Amino acid sequence: MACAKNIWLLGGDRRQAELARLLAMDGHQVHTWALEEGLPAEEAGMARQPPDGLAQADCIILPLPAADGTALHSPLSPFHPALRQVFDALVPGQLVLAGKVDPGLRALAQEHGVQLLDYFAREELAVANAVPTAEGAVQIAMEQLPVTLHGAPVLVVGFGRIGQATALRLAALGAQVTVAARRWEALAWAQALGFQGLLLSQLAQEPRPYPLVVNTVPALVLGKEVLPRFPAGCLILDLASKPGGVDRCAAERCGLPVIHALSLPGKVAPVTAAAILQTTIYHMLQELEQSGKEDAT
Amino acid sequence: MACAKNIWLLGGDRRQAELARLLAMDGHQVHTWALEEGLPAEEAGMARQPPDGLAQADCIILPLPAADGTALHSPLSPFHPALRQVFDALVPGQLVLAGKVDPGLRALAQEHGVQLLDYFAREELAVANAVPTAEGAVQIAMEQLPVTLHGAPVLVVGFGRIGQATALRLAALGAQVTVAARRWEALAWAQALGFQGLLLSQLAQEPRPYPLVVNTVPALVLGKEVLPRFPAGCLILDLASKPGGVDRCAAERCGLPVIHALSLPGKVAPVTAAAILQTTIYHMLQELEQSGKEDAT
Amino acid sequence: MACAKNIWLLGGDRRQAELARLLAMDGHQVHTWALEEGLPAEEAGMARQPPDGLAQADCIILPLPAADGTALHSPLSPFHPALRQVFDALVPGQLVLAGKVDPGLRALAQEHGVQLLDYFAREELAVANAVPTAEGAVQIAMEQLPVTLHGAPVLVVGFGRIGQATALRLAALGAQVTVAARRWEALAWAQALGFQGLLLSQLAQEPRPYPLVVNTVPALVLGKEVLPRFPAGCLILDLASKPGGVDRCAAERCGLPVIHALSLPGKVAPVTAAAILQTTIYHMLQELEQSGKEDAT
Amino acid sequence: MACAKNIWLLGGDRRQAELARLLAMDGHQVHTWALEEGLPAEEAGMARQPPDGLAQADCIILPLPAADGTALHSPLSPFHPALRQVFDALVPGQLVLAGKVDPGLRALAQEHGVQLLDYFAREELAVANAVPTAEGAVQIAMEQLPVTLHGAPVLVVGFGRIGQATALRLAALGAQVTVAARRWEALAWAQALGFQGLLLSQLAQEPRPYPLVVNTVPALVLGKEVLPRFPAGCLILDLASKPGGVDRCAAERCGLPVIHALSLPGKVAPVTAAAILQTTIYHMLQELEQSGKEDAT
Repeated sequence: MACAKNIWLLGGDRRQAELARLLAMDGHQVHTWALEEGLPAEEAGMARQPPDGLAQADCIILPLPAADGTALHSPLSPFHPALRQVFDALVPGQLVLAGKVDPGLRALAQEHGVQLLDYFAREELAVANAVPTAEGAVQIAMEQLPVTLHGAPVLVVGFGRIGQATALRLAALGAQVTVAARRWEALAWAQALGFQGLLLSQLAQEPRPYPLVVNTVPALVLGKEVLPRFPAGCLILDLASKPGGVDRCAAERCGLPVIHALSLPGKVAPVTAAAILQTTIYHMLQELEQSGKEDAT
Repeated sequence: MACAKNIWLLGGDRRQAELARLLAMDGHQVHTWALEEGLPAEEAGMARQPPDGLAQADCIILPLPAADGTALHSPLSPFHPALRQVFDALVPGQLVLAGKVDPGLRALAQEHGVQLLDYFAREELAVANAVPTAEGAVQIAMEQLPVTLHGAPVLVVGFGRIGQATALRLAALGAQVTVAARRWEALAWAQALGFQGLLLSQLAQEPRPYPLVVNTVPALVLGKEVLPRFPAGCLILDLASKPGGVDRCAAERCGLPVIHALSLPGKVAPVTAAAILQTTIYHMLQELEQSGKEDAT
Repeated sequence: MACAKNIWLLGGDRRQAELARLLAMDGHQVHTWALEEGLPAEEAGMARQPPDGLAQADCIILPLPAADGTALHSPLSPFHPALRQVFDALVPGQLVLAGKVDPGLRALAQEHGVQLLDYFAREELAVANAVPTAEGAVQIAMEQLPVTLHGAPVLVVGFGRIGQATALRLAALGAQVTVAARRWEALAWAQALGFQGLLLSQLAQEPRPYPLVVNTVPALVLGKEVLPRFPAGCLILDLASKPGGVDRCAAERCGLPVIHALSLPGKVAPVTAAAILQTTIYHMLQELEQSGKEDAT
Repeated sequence: MACAKNIWLLGGDRRQAELARLLAMDGHQVHTWALEEGLPAEEAGMARQPPDGLAQADCIILPLPAADGTALHSPLSPFHPALRQVFDALVPGQLVLAGKVDPGLRALAQEHGVQLLDYFAREELAVANAVPTAEGAVQIAMEQLPVTLHGAPVLVVGFGRIGQATALRLAALGAQVTVAARRWEALAWAQALGFQGLLLSQLAQEPRPYPLVVNTVPALVLGKEVLPRFPAGCLILDLASKPGGVDRCAAERCGLPVIHALSLPGKVAPVTAAAILQTTIYHMLQELEQSGKEDAT
C-alpha cells in the first residue's frame, strides 16, 4: 500500500482478528473494538461505548457478516453493541467496508451520510474464497470416507467457481470426477478440464455408484428422484448456501448422510481467509483513490 | 442419436471429411459433395451440378467457414460452386448448419426459406475447441524453444477459455506460468488455479524474463511499451484472432519472433476437431427436436 | 481369482474385517475367528477354542501385525488366543499369510511344518500403502493448519515412496513443495517432478519459513541444528516409522508441534487398506500356484 | 561455484557450445577447440594442432559421446582430431570429463596418467535427462497424431525414469494412460500415480485400442504377438536405446508406423541439456574437491 492508513476493525471472529494482524504488519495504524477474545469482564465493560478515535478513522471495517439482526456481529467479544450506536460515533463522509450488507445496514449508512461498501459483493473475493472452500470440502471428505479419494468415483454437482475448484482438487488427488451441470457449455468445460460430464437432467436415470457427492448448486437438485440412485452410505456434502440443494428427508430415507458445510474459509483456514479479505480491501481502497484522482482532474 | 438421418456435407477440409466418417459410423446416411480429394478430373466435372438428392436431406452441413466470398469453401475439391447454386437446389424449410455464417449467407438462406443455424456460434464448440488450440500452442512452443517447458517461466496474456486451457497445460508440463489480465477477478482465478497473476497495466513496468509469451487477447496488448521488456529471442505466440494482439513492427525491432497461429484445431487435430463438430451438431439437432415437440403440444 | 478358496481370517482390526468382506464378495468361502466385534460374552466364550474347520483351510490369514507378544493381535475381539494355540490347530503343509512376521512367529511356523509368508514384506503392498499414507498426511495437515495448503511453502524430507506420494499430493493442491534429500539423484528426480530440491546437509544453513514440514526419513534428520530454522508454530508431521526422525525435546524447546502419525492406511482408509491387502494376497497365491505348476513339470 | 576454473571444451555439438556459454556466465575461464561452427577454412586450418594452453586446464570437457571411433566427436568443426593427439597435449594428473567413455578412451587416459571421469554414468544426469526426453516424446506425438492427447488412450511400456516422466506428462495433458510393466511393484507405483496398470505378459491377450504406444524398454517387448493387437495406424514411439524394443518388420506388416527417437535432450532442448551437463559437472568437481580435502587431512 502506498501510504499507511488509520483503520478500525469492529467486531468479527478469528478471521477479523487475523486481518487486524495482517494490516498492522503492512504498516497501517490498526485499532480493534468488540474483538477482544478472553478480555476480563470489567475491561470489556469499560469498552462498552464506541471509542472516540473512531471518528478519525480512514476506514472502518465491519465483519462478515456485519450484523446479527441489528447488533454488530461480535462472537469473540462479551458484548454486542447495536449497529446504530456504532454509526452514531461516525462522521459523515467516512468509509465503512462491511460483508453481506443487508438493507437495514444500508439504511443506517445512508442516514448517517457514511460511504458503505460491501467487500463480500466483490467478485475477486468470491473467486479467491473458492480455494479454502474446496480444501475444506476435501478435508471433510477425507475425514468421513473409509476409502481414499485416490481411485474413488466422485460426483460434483454444479460447475461454477466452487464446483471447479473442488473438482480440480479431487481429481488432483486421484479421484475419478464426474461433473453434473445443466448446460452443454459447462459440460464442455468440465471435459476440457479432464472430467466426465453429465447432464443434470440425466442424473436420475441410472444408478450412480459414488461414495461421495459434492453439491454446489443452491437449488433443489438432489431430490427424491435422484437420491435413490446413490448407494447406501454415500456421503452427500452440500456446499451450497442455505437452504442447500439436498432434500434432507429423502436423503435420510435412502440412508445417505448429508453434511451441509457453510462458511468453510473462515473455519478451515482463517489466516488465508483474512489474507483474501485484506487483498480485496486493498483493491477497493486503490479504486477509491483512483476515482478520487480522476474526480479531481 | 435416436434415429438415423439423411445428412449432406458440402465442401470443407479434412475436418469435414472426418466428420462425414464419424456421422456414418453412428449410422446416419451420409453424402458428400465438393469434398472429393483426389477425384479424377472427369468425375469432378460430372459432379459440377448440385446433386438431386440434396432436396431430400434432413440436414445439410456447410464447412467452417462456410464461404469463400460467394463460393462454397471447398479446398479439397477441384471446383468451387457458388453458394447461390447450392441454395437453389434446396427446398424451403430444410435445415442448413454452417460455420462462421456471414450476412451474405444469411440473406441467401432467408431468400430461399431455408433454416440456417451457425454451429460456430455455439458456446460449447468454442469451449471444446480450446483444448486442441492449447495443445497446438504447446506443440509450437516445444518445436521452437531450445529449452524445455519444464522449469521455463512463461507468460500467458488473457485468461478466457484459451488462456486458461493453455496456462493449465504449460503448468502441467512444469512451466512457471504467470497470467496477465485486466481484471482483479481474472487474476484471482489465475491464482486459484496456481498461477502468478499480473495486472495487464503493469506489464510494461519491469523487465519480464520470459522465453515464451502466449497471447490470447484480440486487442493490441503487446505494443511498443511492453515488448522491449521481453528478452531478445523471446517467442511471441499469438493465438488471438486476426489481427492478433501484437505490434509486429515493434516486435521485429526488439528481435522478438512472432508466430500468429490461427485455426489450430483443424490443423493439429483434425479428427478431434471433427468430433467436436459432431457433438455440437447433435446438440443442435436434439434441441430442434425438443422445441419441435414442444411446439406440437 | 481362478477358483474359490477356503480362507480363514484370525484376529485383526477393521481392515481385516473389510478384507473378509472383500474376499467373500469375490466368491471365496470365508471364515473369521477372534474378529467378532461386539459379540455377546457367552458367544465369545464359546469361541475360545480354535475352530475345527481351521485344518481344512486353503489359506489362513493373520493380521497386521500378526502378534501382540505371543498372542494373536485381535483388538476387535474380547479374547486374545495364544499364537501357539492357533498353530496347534493347523496341519503341516498349510499356508499362513501374516503381516510383520517376527522371529517367534517364524519359529512357531517352522516347528509346526506350516508355510508362513509375510505379506507386509511385499514391495507392491508398501508401494500401494503410500497412497493412503499420503492422503492421511494431507488430511492431518488440513486439520491442523490455519492456512490453505494452496500457496503454502511446504518441506518434505526424504523422497522415497511416501515422500514422493506426499509431495505430489501437496503440490497438486497448490502447495509450493521443497524436497530435502541426501543424494543428488533424489534431488534431480524431485526437480523432474516439479519440486524445489535441497540437500539435506544444507537444511540447517538458513531460516526455512515453512508452516509445515513432513518427515519420511526413519533417522534423526530433524535435530537441534535444523529445528531452530523453522518458524515458531511450524507443524512437524512425522511419518517415519518408530522412533521417527524428529528430536522431540528440541522441537518442544523451539515451540514446534510434532505429530507422529503411524499406520495411517488402516486408520484413514480401512476399506482401501483392505483392498490393498487383498490384491497383495492374490498376487502371493498366484505366484504359489505358478511355482507349484512349475515344480510339477 | 566457489572459485573460477580454467576449463577447456574440446569438440561437441550445440549442447557443448551452450555449455561453454553457461560456464563462462558463471565466471569460469572457458576455452573451446574444434567447436567453431562456421569458422573460415584457413582459421580452422590454423587450429589443427591442440592448443598449448590445454596443459594448464583445471578441467578438460569432452563431448557426449566423446569419440567417433578414434577421433574426437566434433560435428560443428571442419576437422576431427585424433583423440591420441588430444591426450598427447595433456600432462599427467589433469582431469578429463567425458560422456559415454569407451574402453579405447579409458586406455588412452590411463596411458597418459590422466584422470578420466564419465559424466554420462552419473545417475543425476540420467534422471534429469528424462524430462527433455519425455517432452520430446510429447512433441513427436503431438506432431504425428490427428487427435489431441487430451482424451486419447495411450500405452506406455516400461516404468523406469523415462516411462514415468513420459506417462506423467501425457496424463497431465489429459491422456488416459495405461502403463505396462513386468513387476507388480512397478504396476502398484503406476496405479499410485493415477495410471492403469497392465502386466507386460498380458499385453498380447486382448485388442488394445491405443492410437499411441510409447516404449521405453530396451528389450524386444513389442514383438509379433503383441503388435497385431494394436489398431492400424497406431503410432509406435520407441524411446529405448538401440536396437529399441520393437520388431520393425512385424510392425510394418501390421501397418504400424514406428519412430525410433534417440538422444532427444540434445535435439529438442539443447540449452536445457547443456544446463543439465553443467549441474552434473559441478557436482563432480565438488565431490573431487571434498575427497581431495579428506585425503589431505
